[in-house]
Amino acid sequence: MAAIPSVSNSITVRLELPARATAVSELTNVIEKSGGLVTGLDVTASGPDRLRVDVTAAARDTAHADEIVEAMRTVHGIEIGKVSDRTFLVHLGGKLKIESKVPIRNRDDLSLIYTPGVARVCTAIAENPADARRLTIKRNTVAVVTDGSAVLGLGNIGPLAALPVMEGKAALFKRFADIDAFPICLDTQDTEEIIRTVKAISPVFAGINLEDISAPRCFEIEARLREELDIPVFHDDQHGTAIVALAALKNALRVVKKDLGSVRIVMSGAGAAGTAILKLFLKAGAKNVIVADQFGILHPEREDIASGEHPSLMWSATHTNTEGMQGTLREALVGADVFVGVSAPHILTGDDIATMNDDAIVFAMANPEPEVDPVEAAQHATVVATGRSDFANQINNVLVFPGVFRGLLDAHSTMITDDVLLAAADALAEVVHPDELNPAYIIPSVFNPHVTEVVSAAVEAAVKRSETVAPA
Amino acid sequence: MAAIPSVSNSITVRLELPARATAVSELTNVIEKSGGLVTGLDVTASGPDRLRVDVTAAARDTAHADEIVEAMRTVHGIEIGKVSDRTFLVHLGGKLKIESKVPIRNRDDLSLIYTPGVARVCTAIAENPADARRLTIKRNTVAVVTDGSAVLGLGNIGPLAALPVMEGKAALFKRFADIDAFPICLDTQDTEEIIRTVKAISPVFAGINLEDISAPRCFEIEARLREELDIPVFHDDQHGTAIVALAALKNALRVVKKDLGSVRIVMSGAGAAGTAILKLFLKAGAKNVIVADQFGILHPEREDIASGEHPSLMWSATHTNTEGMQGTLREALVGADVFVGVSAPHILTGDDIATMNDDAIVFAMANPEPEVDPVEAAQHATVVATGRSDFANQINNVLVFPGVFRGLLDAHSTMITDDVLLAAADALAEVVHPDELNPAYIIPSVFNPHVTEVVSAAVEAAVKRSETVAPA
Repeated sequence: MAAIPSVSNSITVRLELPARATAVSELTNVIEKSGGLVTGLDVTASGPDRLRVDVTAAARDTAHADEIVEAMRTVHGIEIGKVSDRTFLVHLGGKLKIESKVPIRNRDDLSLIYTPGVARVCTAIAENPADARRLTIKRNTVAVVTDGSAVLGLGNIGPLAALPVMEGKAALFKRFADIDAFPICLDTQDTEEIIRTVKAISPVFAGINLEDISAPRCFEIEARLREELDIPVFHDDQHGTAIVALAALKNALRVVKKDLGSVRIVMSGAGAAGTAILKLFLKAGAKNVIVADQFGILHPEREDIASGEHPSLMWSATHTNTEGMQGTLREALVGADVFVGVSAPHILTGDDIATMNDDAIVFAMANPEPEVDPVEAAQHATVVATGRSDFANQINNVLVFPGVFRGLLDAHSTMITDDVLLAAADALAEVVHPDELNPAYIIPSVFNPHVTEVVSAAVEAAVKRSETVAPA
Repeated sequence: MAAIPSVSNSITVRLELPARATAVSELTNVIEKSGGLVTGLDVTASGPDRLRVDVTAAARDTAHADEIVEAMRTVHGIEIGKVSDRTFLVHLGGKLKIESKVPIRNRDDLSLIYTPGVARVCTAIAENPADARRLTIKRNTVAVVTDGSAVLGLGNIGPLAALPVMEGKAALFKRFADIDAFPICLDTQDTEEIIRTVKAISPVFAGINLEDISAPRCFEIEARLREELDIPVFHDDQHGTAIVALAALKNALRVVKKDLGSVRIVMSGAGAAGTAILKLFLKAGAKNVIVADQFGILHPEREDIASGEHPSLMWSATHTNTEGMQGTLREALVGADVFVGVSAPHILTGDDIATMNDDAIVFAMANPEPEVDPVEAAQHATVVATGRSDFANQINNVLVFPGVFRGLLDAHSTMITDDVLLAAADALAEVVHPDELNPAYIIPSVFNPHVTEVVSAAVEAAVKRSETVAPA
């Protein structure tokens, strides 16, 4: 699967050309010959001898973009001006703004929203803290918290370099669920310090979305914050991924007419996402799961696991692999019904997929490069999904976190339970109607306008059910 | 100075009246007789027998609002419906929202602002952290930080009840300086914990505005954060108040044609604001200052000060009162040219002001009730200012903090110096042109459109001067 030109690697080049009839077509020709994709061209000024042109072209990557510009220089008489990177342009100055919802036109407005009027609102909240959900931003505000230790596929790039991702996440919260989310990028990677800091800043927020915090620290941070805070704590890399994977699996199983309780599932990856997916699959009724990581199949006797140094690996080992299988991922895959990868690129081939059971399901979710080329996988599996936007069945957390938080906030939830995660997965799966369901459409588009609505309603209902069972 | 009806204590009452000719005037009559001020009246529906009316009236306080509603019940045939408190209405749902500055319409947009495009922006910042000011919200984002320990005149009401004030502050940052400010209300009042937390969340911000943190902890918190952070830290209760007080004093001295270096200044209050004012006055050239608190005039031998338990009182005692005066505030005031109060209501009378020097200047800034009735004070002093919006010469921090931060952010300042504070005070004073200057106009209105612009330009220039002297 060769890289193709992407809008996220677009450049806009301002240039001048001689005003000869063929000049513009010469330009687009060299761009296309060098592998670029022209996505826009404006002649912004014209004179008797010269044309001024802005051309936008998609490249495969930054180096390719440079090659395209060099190729453009071969057009006779061209003068290249400013070369802008579209991705950088769109991030200039940051992607969020904070606005006042109230007008401040005169002293009367000031006296209502600030002193002296605000004092009465403060007093009301001091007397009845629950009023904060009515009279402040708390009701609709979520913190997107990271320490920058595991950002996308980039690794430990730190809090400042993680900020563009957290801003993007906050923008998605707004776009898909009208939630006010604010990025909190922590200048510490100490577990206790992170827990202390999030607790300290929690009063303003109605929910905490943990993001891009590396395993195994993320498990401890999430567990402790859930215990110690009275607002829901969601780790999107774990729970968001688990929900969307479960929803996709449910629909894939419908396509191949197999049952979650009886299929054999092989997973690659035992980090934050893998462990969360495993736990949710088991909660949902999966019985036969084998997990492998880079050292092979997880089983309790494996040396590194038996040492007890990795409690989460031990948990996974003792809750899977009932046959006590040992060996490699490749060995585990033989005869399996489902493969779920949240690990590393290109660790399997089409031939490996061919060893799976009939009507195999393959979720190769490593980003940006999947565990197996999806085109090759599709020659041997019935349903193939990836994390990529340029292939069918994109398993994307954007389908989940906006609706989950919308539901949690609307329910004034103080926590998040497994029932909520399961309800969200069910609801998301059911957005795909039976007559829409097919091997290339097991999961809706992120721009499907019903997704947030359906997921949030299911979450809100699940919260209310759990409160009826065990009133807080 | 009796309390007068204020828009910040307004109620809107939905009611029905019989459709007789005098009904509406009977209604407004009873409201006015009970001391209310009708500020709006709409007949929202009319029928053959009944009128539906929304009437808005300003009251002195909540109890008075209840009295007005009771008085309205005496109108023959009236039916009172919903009574709404305008202040609470305007705070419903909070006063801030977070918006995305970028459109998210389709997969192309997603791939630019989020994965995979955002990864290149992250990498650029990881390689060159200074790029965060160009490619993220950091450049224009300020944290408004409180622990809720000293909120307005309400005292230690905690972080949640402080949130409406911090939201209001953030709204003012936007309104007056187009700055994105976000409230951070801390669930801790431990000095070390506050310092640790603010440091931990600092990467996202280009400045820290401390707010409503009680003395003496606020001194330590501010000093340590200034030392340990690479962004400016401003404590508005201290520095904002000091800047606006100095600006007002400079203009007041111009009015009475006296000189800062030779006037005798008596201050009441040695807390956060008082200490900051004192320090800035001394920096600006004041030589003869006496400070009193509730235990009388500060001098190094005073028992509580000599004990060494209050370093900031000791500092103030040893930098003032060169004559070694002992006794009460009242005694210090005799013959003084300037009184500056940031302490408690009604501690002085007009007779006390009468003992001051000719052409006395009185800044009675205690909120909401000044140290001395400004109407009484004005009978004996030439210039009188307060913190109130219903009297001439309101000394209001809103004149200062937006412009100061605008200038600091525009200069990419890493710190805040005394020169910056002095430059801001000078600039603010000079917004009042010589031909506008008079005893009732020593300080501009907060809605004067030039204030932020002039103050921020002066701050930016001061930052650049200091960098030339001592490059960071």
